[in-house]
This record gives sequence, structure tokens and C-alpha cells, in this order.
Amino acid sequence: MDTPELIQTTLEVTDGVALIELRNAGRRNAWNGRMAGEYRWLLHHCDERADVRAVVVTGAGDDFCVGADFRELESIGETASYERPRAIPPAPFPDRADESLRRNHMYPLTLSVPVIAAIQGGCAGAGFVVSTYADFRVVDGAARVSSSYAGLGLPAEYGIGWMLPRIMGTAQSAVILLDNEPHSGSDVYRMGWAQYLSEGTGSARARAVELATRIARSSAPSSIAMMKRQLYVDAWREATEAYVRSVSDMDAAVGSADFRRSVAARRKGERVDFRTVEPKEPQT
Amino acid sequence: MDTPELIQTTLEVTDGVALIELRNAGRRNAWNGRMAGEYRWLLHHCDERADVRAVVVTGAGDDFCVGADFRELESIGETASYERPRAIPPAPFPDRADESLRRNHMYPLTLSVPVIAAIQGGCAGAGFVVSTYADFRVVDGAARVSSSYAGLGLPAEYGIGWMLPRIMGTAQSAVILLDNEPHSGSDVYRMGWAQYLSEGTGSARARAVELATRIARSSAPSSIAMMKRQLYVDAWREATEAYVRSVSDMDAAVGSADFRRSVAARRKGERVDFRTVEPKEPQT
Amino acid sequence: MDTPELIQTTLEVTDGVALIELRNAGRRNAWNGRMAGEYRWLLHHCDERADVRAVVVTGAGDDFCVGADFRELESIGETASYERPRAIPPAPFPDRADESLRRNHMYPLTLSVPVIAAIQGGCAGAGFVVSTYADFRVVDGAARVSSSYAGLGLPAEYGIGWMLPRIMGTAQSAVILLDNEPHSGSDVYRMGWAQYLSEGTGSARARAVELATRIARSSAPSSIAMMKRQLYVDAWREATEAYVRSVSDMDAAVGSADFRRSVAARRKGERVDFRTVEPKEPQT
Repeated sequence: MDTPELIQTTLEVTDGVALIELRNAGRRNAWNGRMAGEYRWLLHHCDERADVRAVVVTGAGDDFCVGADFRELESIGETASYERPRAIPPAPFPDRADESLRRNHMYPLTLSVPVIAAIQGGCAGAGFVVSTYADFRVVDGAARVSSSYAGLGLPAEYGIGWMLPRIMGTAQSAVILLDNEPHSGSDVYRMGWAQYLSEGTGSARARAVELATRIARSSAPSSIAMMKRQLYVDAWREATEAYVRSVSDMDAAVGSADFRRSVAARRKGERVDFRTVEPKEPQT
Repeated sequence: MDTPELIQTTLEVTDGVALIELRNAGRRNAWNGRMAGEYRWLLHHCDERADVRAVVVTGAGDDFCVGADFRELESIGETASYERPRAIPPAPFPDRADESLRRNHMYPLTLSVPVIAAIQGGCAGAGFVVSTYADFRVVDGAARVSSSYAGLGLPAEYGIGWMLPRIMGTAQSAVILLDNEPHSGSDVYRMGWAQYLSEGTGSARARAVELATRIARSSAPSSIAMMKRQLYVDAWREATEAYVRSVSDMDAAVGSADFRRSVAARRKGERVDFRTVEPKEPQT
Repeated sequence: MDTPELIQTTLEVTDGVALIELRNAGRRNAWNGRMAGEYRWLLHHCDERADVRAVVVTGAGDDFCVGADFRELESIGETASYERPRAIPPAPFPDRADESLRRNHMYPLTLSVPVIAAIQGGCAGAGFVVSTYADFRVVDGAARVSSSYAGLGLPAEYGIGWMLPRIMGTAQSAVILLDNEPHSGSDVYRMGWAQYLSEGTGSARARAVELATRIARSSAPSSIAMMKRQLYVDAWREATEAYVRSVSDMDAAVGSADFRRSVAARRKGERVDFRTVEPKEPQT
């Protein structure tokens, strides 16, 4: 299936970086089933497109995404099920996706392409899920970030209780989950949820695009694919298993065109611009 | 059994927040078997009392707790066993407590109520254990925090070697365990052991009570109960298992009175004050 | 076997602290098979020598270690195997080393002696591996630290994808792995990779030696041995298993000469200088 018509998202690709906007005008980019479906399809195509080497996800306008549309929340209460009807058939997982991560909101973790969230304004509920499942986060100091679950009688949603402690430890996770009031961007940066802090309207997006461009240029897509698997799958197995797997990855990598190309370039005092190398992930 | 007579602790409940003091006058709140027994019973009753929605644990006077009473340490050396005779039969674990956490000092992790430690003055040894097993910590900048085990030829006590890396990572844990000298409150905040820093006598307690009150007011007790299990149990299982469990928690939660009440309040632009909602954890 | 002739390293022992230098003059201490072999043998002997209670590893001159010698990298590309021929038979693991950590670069984790890395100048590739497997790190603010793998089409090497998230969380690990450009010492300190920041040429080494001396003096070698196992092995098992093991460690420890000596000293208001206690790890 092709990417569906984009109603609740936008996509723009520049110099190897895809910028995805969540967009729900007049509703502070409130999340809904349509947006969820489009976002996953966009990620799928970014992962497959040769001209996309990094993804930035952000919100259109002043907010990131303030959570589920309240009209949806109310219907959830009526049906007593949080699983919303799918507006769009879901994009497939990559073939290489590990079994342990084949869950809807964990989708970004299974991709080969890096996903960076740029957070400004309000970020809560489903918006907090989307940004937490990015590889890392750039936050505007004035953003207002809230897990928001405890204010609604909900648990940490969609495996976020698994992801958060791996990002920021159990105690800071307890703060952001149990203390349901919004935390400023500066606070969530200090707490370790966000990895970069920016100041000023639109600055988080600009900084995220800059970082994404640097990664797209300097880092081999094949490396990034292996590293994401190492961080989200191998790291949570036995030390020996992770070690042995990394050595077999290394053995495969040194036979690759990327490795030979990189070493040859360095010999001449140069660096490869990986955006220019095709196909995106050379087979060994 | 009722809470035993309080000799080495005090309890005060105000506006949904229980303040527990460790108290051993003239001995800087040194830990002993009686204090251990009382603390666990107080936590048990706070977990069950409808009017307690958050707990702050601190020390009476100028210190948090400087560790085991040396008179007890000497008798330990004589009997060659660290398991002290119990002064009081231990309070039971909650029925819902996961098997993996049913260990004496991990008791706070098994509760539905949040436990916040407010640390001033000296905090060492058993005091370090008690504060590390709180959900999060507020520390006075002038506090003196020491694991203190290595200075006595001891290992990290009572599973603290399991808890610490989940709070602050293995390397900062190595610093606080291997470097046995006291670290200032400012240092342990910077290192990620404490989540909030306060300045001035009594300020850690006041700040912790303020945070506890905010959680008691804004967060549903049913959410907190699920979140603690998510952070201390589910998070350390397979990603898929944690995810699937969170979705089944969500399905249960959206059928709850807390959820319906919260959504209804928001529709009117209001928020529920969860301290006023009884029973504490509405069954679905 | 004795420690081999030191060609690519130096060793100096002062007041209980061993200072190991990586040394490859004119090549910014580039890593090679000989250096790898010598480093492991030096660690082995430091672990066994009664007069060494802590180890600092650093680079000779202006850099820590800028990674594999490019002449070796090129031959790797030719043989399509990253496993380099061993210049020296490898030093044995300690008998007590856990099975899960018996992998070449994880060697420092298996020792009883603490290993502190002091990082100045360039630190990349194999140098990043060596410093990441230290117990903790002191970094000069002006250092230039790079994982460097993604720039060569490589994965995180030698289990580093397992170690990094335990030190700094998955998101900061993603930053340092996916963003392959050098990060300043100040940055990697802020990111949680380094635990201490120093300023000025040679200051990282001086600070690391000072911390190592404090640990050597104040911390019992038997405690450190148990703590390293607790942090790198027990912590990643079930909570109950880690707890039960810590209690059995405690029971063994309170029967030890170190414990009796420490308690006796404190009774007199004194502290043991553990550098003066022999043998290094008294059996219970």
C-alpha cells in the first residue's frame, strides 16, 4: 500500500532529512486514529526511501501534540476499550524488526532510520508516547510536557513504562509519571527525558533538523540500523549474548562497501558524505 | 495486627499526605530493629488508609538516618549474621505485591502509595537503603550522603546494587558505592540519586510535602499503583510483555470510575481532586 | 606468565594506585594488538598485586587513544575479520569472573580492583571502548570523545551497546552512537558518560589519581570486589535474586576480618586505611 492521503500529518524531505509534522489545526494537534495511521505509514516510507537518512517529528504550529482528542476519549469510555478502530490499515513492520518490539507505538524503534522528536508547546498523553519512542529528543525550554496518564486514572500507556526507565532511570520516570502536572522543557531536559535544550519559538525544530542532517551526512545507515537493534534489543539480553552479537556484526561490517569506502576516504584525509551513497544500506 | 506503639518513628497525616519521621534522639536517628519494624508497619497502614495518598519519609531533627546503631553492628560481628532479630512481627506485603519484590527493604516498591524521601543532614548505611527504596528523593544541598558499606567491608546491602543502577546508572552507582566518603546533597543531586535539590534547614521536608500534596491531589491512586508495578516489575521483563500488560491495564482503566470522572471533569474544564475520591482505589 | 615487556603501555604504582598509560608515540596512542595484550596483562597483575588497590588508565601525552591504528584497519578490510591476530597470549580471567562477562574488552568488569579512566585529548573507537569499560570516567572539558563507529560503517563494538545504556540510558547512548562527530569533554560529562569533569592539561589524570587514592584508602578491597559483581552481574538478574545474593554476601562479610577491624576502629573514632591491610582480600 502507498502512503495514505495526508490529512493529519505533513512530510517534507530536504537534504536527506524528512520532517514529519503532526497536524490537527485548532485542536493543538490532538491525536486521533487517522493521525496514528498516517504517522506509521510515513515512518515506513521514510525507512524505505533512499533519499531519507534521518527523520524529525514535530507538531505543526505552536504545539507538539496534546494527547488524544477528547471526543475520542469519551467514546473510549463508552466502549470500555482503549483500542481505537483503525482509520487506516497499519503499515508493516520491517522484515528485520525484532519480535520483541513488534508493537504499534514501538514502531520507530524497529526502523533502520533514526527518529528525532522536536518538542515545543504542549506535549502530553499520546504526544508523550510519540516523543518518548523517538531515539532522542530536542525540547524548547518553554515547552509543557506531561505524561498526563495519572490525571485520567490511566497507567503509563503502550509500554512507556518499559521505555522511560531506560531513558531516564526509574526515579525520574516516577517523577514524570506520578507527578501528572506539566513539567517545563527545561525541567524535562534536566531530568534526562530530553537530550537537547533549545530556546525560542521554532528553535527545537531547527536544532533537531541540524542534528539530523549531521547524522545523515556522517553516519552510515547500516551502522544506525545495527545500533538501534543493539540499544533496544541486544542491550536487554545477557552481556555475553550482546557481546557475541556485536562481534558478528563487526565481522559482517568489515566486509561491507561502507567500511571499505570509509577507510579509503580517511586514508586520503577525507570523510564520506553518506547521503550520497546508494543503495542506502549496502548488503555485505 | 495494628501498628505497634511508635517508639522510633512518628506519623502525622495532613491533607492526604503522611509524614513519617525516623527518630532516635541523640543518636542521629540511628537505625535499629525496632525502627525497621515500625517503619514497615507505618507504610502498611498508609497504604491501606483511605486518607493517605502519598508518604514522605524523613528524619526527626537534623539528620535523616546515619545507619545502623553501632551497638547493633557490634553484636552482628559477634553472631556473624546480619539478619537482626525482629523486634516486631513484620507487616504483611500487599496481596498485589509481585513475587520478585517481596523482600523486606523493597517493601515500599510493592505499595500502591508513592513514597518520597526528604533527606537532610547525615544519610548513610541503612538510611541510604531506606532513602534509595523511596520512589524519588528530595535532598538538602548540605546533606551528607554515604553508602558507607565499603568502609565496613560490606557489599551493597539488601538489593541496593539492583536498585541503584536503575536510578542513576552503573557508573554513578560505582562512584557512590566504591567511593565511600560522604557526598554532599548537591553532589548526589547532580549524580542523579536525588531528583530534587533544596536549600536550607528543613527545606527538603517542605519541598517533599509540597510535591506529595500535588501528587495526592492530581494523580489517581489507581494510576500510581499500576505505575509502580510498571516501573519496578514490568519494565525489567521483555518489551513485548511490558507493552501487552500496559494495554490490558489501559483496557481495565477506561472502564473505571476514575477514568469516567476525570473525562467528565475535563469536559467542563475542571480537574478532579483525587484526595476527595473514595474509596481510594475504585475497582473497575 | 609474567607481564610481557611493555612497549605500548607504561605502569607506575604510587601509594596503592596504579597508573597505566596507553602509549603509541607519534600516533596519538592508536590502539593495536600489542597494546591490547599489554593492557590486559597489566590489569591482571594490578588485580593480583597486594600493593595495588585502584587503577587509573590514561594516555601518554596529549591524547587518550584515538582508536585502531589505520594500518590495522586496512588489513582488517582485507581479511574481512575484525578479530586481530593476538600479539601476546591473553591474560587469564580471575577465577571469580562471572561467565557472562568473560569477553575480552569486558575484562576490567571482572576484576576486584576498581578501574578509573582519565580522558584528555582525543578518545575514539577502541579508546572509547577502553574508557567505557572502566568503572567510571574523569574527563577533561577540552577532550574530544567520539564513538566513531558509524563513520566507518561499524556497529557499536565489543558489547559497548550493552554497556552504554547502563551508564547513560538509551537516548544519550543513541546520541553518542548515531552522532558520530566528536563531543567535547564538557558535553559527554553533561550527557552522563563521564562522572567527573576537570579543566586544564593533565587535570583529568590528577583528579582520577586523587579519587583512586581516596577509594584505595577508604574502601575495603573485599567490598569493591562484591560491588563490581553486584553492578555488572547481579543487577541484571531478577530483583529477588540480587537481593538474596546481597544478603548472603552480607552474612559472609560480617564474619570477615575487614568488618571486625572496621567496627573496632570506628568504636575508637578512627578509620581503617585499607591500603595498609594485608592480604588484600582477607578470606572470611
